Amino acid sequence: MIAVIMAGGTGSRFWPRSRRSEPKQFLPLVGEKTLLVETVERIEPLIPLEKILIVTGAAFVDRVKRDLPGIPAENILGEPVGRNTAPCIALAAACSEARWGAGEVMAVLPADHHIADGELFREHLRIAAEACRDDSVLVTIGIEPARPETGYGYLELGDVCQTARGREINRLKRFVEKPDRTTAESYVQAGNYLWNSGMFLWRVGAIRAALEQHIPELAAPMAEFRKADRAGLPAILERIYPGLPSLSIDYGVMEKAADVVALPGRFPWNDVGSWEAIGDLVPVDQAGNSVVGEHISVESRGCIVHSTGKPVATIGVEDLIIVETETALLVCPRDRAQDVRLIVDRLAEAGRDDLL
Amino acid sequence: MIAVIMAGGTGSRFWPRSRRSEPKQFLPLVGEKTLLVETVERIEPLIPLEKILIVTGAAFVDRVKRDLPGIPAENILGEPVGRNTAPCIALAAACSEARWGAGEVMAVLPADHHIADGELFREHLRIAAEACRDDSVLVTIGIEPARPETGYGYLELGDVCQTARGREINRLKRFVEKPDRTTAESYVQAGNYLWNSGMFLWRVGAIRAALEQHIPELAAPMAEFRKADRAGLPAILERIYPGLPSLSIDYGVMEKAADVVALPGRFPWNDVGSWEAIGDLVPVDQAGNSVVGEHISVESRGCIVHSTGKPVATIGVEDLIIVETETALLVCPRDRAQDVRLIVDRLAEAGRDDLL
Repeated sequence: MIAVIMAGGTGSRFWPRSRRSEPKQFLPLVGEKTLLVETVERIEPLIPLEKILIVTGAAFVDRVKRDLPGIPAENILGEPVGRNTAPCIALAAACSEARWGAGEVMAVLPADHHIADGELFREHLRIAAEACRDDSVLVTIGIEPARPETGYGYLELGDVCQTARGREINRLKRFVEKPDRTTAESYVQAGNYLWNSGMFLWRVGAIRAALEQHIPELAAPMAEFRKADRAGLPAILERIYPGLPSLSIDYGVMEKAADVVALPGRFPWNDVGSWEAIGDLVPVDQAGNSVVGEHISVESRGCIVHSTGKPVATIGVEDLIIVETETALLVCPRDRAQDVRLIVDRLAEAGRDDLL
Repeated sequence: MIAVIMAGGTGSRFWPRSRRSEPKQFLPLVGEKTLLVETVERIEPLIPLEKILIVTGAAFVDRVKRDLPGIPAENILGEPVGRNTAPCIALAAACSEARWGAGEVMAVLPADHHIADGELFREHLRIAAEACRDDSVLVTIGIEPARPETGYGYLELGDVCQTARGREINRLKRFVEKPDRTTAESYVQAGNYLWNSGMFLWRVGAIRAALEQHIPELAAPMAEFRKADRAGLPAILERIYPGLPSLSIDYGVMEKAADVVALPGRFPWNDVGSWEAIGDLVPVDQAGNSVVGEHISVESRGCIVHSTGKPVATIGVEDLIIVETETALLVCPRDRAQDVRLIVDRLAEAGRDDLL
């Protein structure tokens, strides 16, 4: 098996901790390791470092090399511009085919999720790999929904089928957009819906064929990527990548492909989507505060405190997010965590590159 | 006229901006000048710098010299320990008598109040000075109450009498402790109550006599202070000061003295008593936020933001105090401003001198 880790995100919802120069996947938001390093360490017992590709922004290639010295330099691919997940996967699939052949099973994983139980997660990868039995099936790993979340897309499951070793997996009926609250509740109730986590497994040949079929404008670029040698690849990417269509693999391929199966993920999963998510990942004190750094609290409850330097003193506040970094300070209620990007938007409009 | 500025406060309610090493009167909490420098500049058109005494903690003598180079070094008196206002005034009165004689009018002013209209304030000082017609009268300047404040003591006014030049002033009926809400409302309603502001005028001989009469244990120390030369004074203070009773001038003298008059102060006055007070002093933006430093606001209202360095971003918060300094960060609701000292108490208990 080989793995492709997609590490191209910008993570503006973690401002001011995340910056343009330091997106979410390069931050130790949970524990002491960055999310990307955690992701690599999670799969390493199953997939050797030589077979892990990392696709990231061109500006971050050196950073990835520094953080993950065990990964061969030629496995770190730099996108000159972001073009969503379909071109990213096309690039990774082309490079994988050139190096390891079309028959390899390829796991595609986001760099910025937190999964507490590594062994359970790897067991899911094994089962999903068994499902990649031929050159057409595409596998996605969904997450059994813990609550009627409206911030994720859902996967509707169809009939049960079997992996090569006879383990159960489901045919995928359809992809569903982010639902409203009532619809989300009905999905959780129904029991045959999963959260769409953006994790996929397939044979390299299967995704190549699916990309060529459903996004034909990627066929020629993939051919160029396959032929490129290591030294020549960056220049080829510089030339070709900006012209690629910006499409998600969900929209561009998965929703159209005929032979898609979904494995219900039963491991503890957190997409670390906003500061609010940190409340579920960092242990809480007796008053329900999740604290990274020093917190001096008088009658404060349910706060998420994240300080990279100074002590944070609070008196009589509840359910606030308080973030202190070398750059700036952020204070907002937990239920406004999604709106942190509004600050980032405003700073961008004002040309405040010093804060972005 | 001479002036004594009492600059001995510690101001723990402005933590983390105020520190042990930098109490409130040494901070530019309003505008760009420190409260002490503002106080001196406010009276300078009326009282020459050579006749302004400043009493402060011994550790702050050099700081005062630096901030106020126009004030003669011998006018800056350092208390080895704080002993409340009565010993402070006794010391200042003794030094004043030795240098300028018992007949001078002496104004005693706190170092840490904000008074927006300097000329109007000086006019009050002139009227109060006219009232110091003989060697027994003690004058206090009270503030016409703007609201039923429960955080101040009050002065109950008696009959109207006249200054030397025939201007109106009131006999003082009594000092009143901080009232409860209902009582405070009745005081404001009644119209013959003032807030006790801690500002006094008297002839040097008058306060000497009153101190000797009402706090007899200060008589001998005052005699020593009068005899001391400049070079010898610090050693005398080191020896005598710790043994002096810790008494306020209100409790020790004013409440007992027979001949006390009170001038209603009609100038804009703010005792800068807590972060909450800053909301009345720093101009508000359209959303009612009082900001020192940079504030990036999304739907935030009525906040007091004070940052000495970084931008402060807030989303959807109301009526919060947010303070950011090189030392620490503070977040608390405006109606808990008085409780900032609880943080200071806790830090002191924990031996966190690095934050105090």
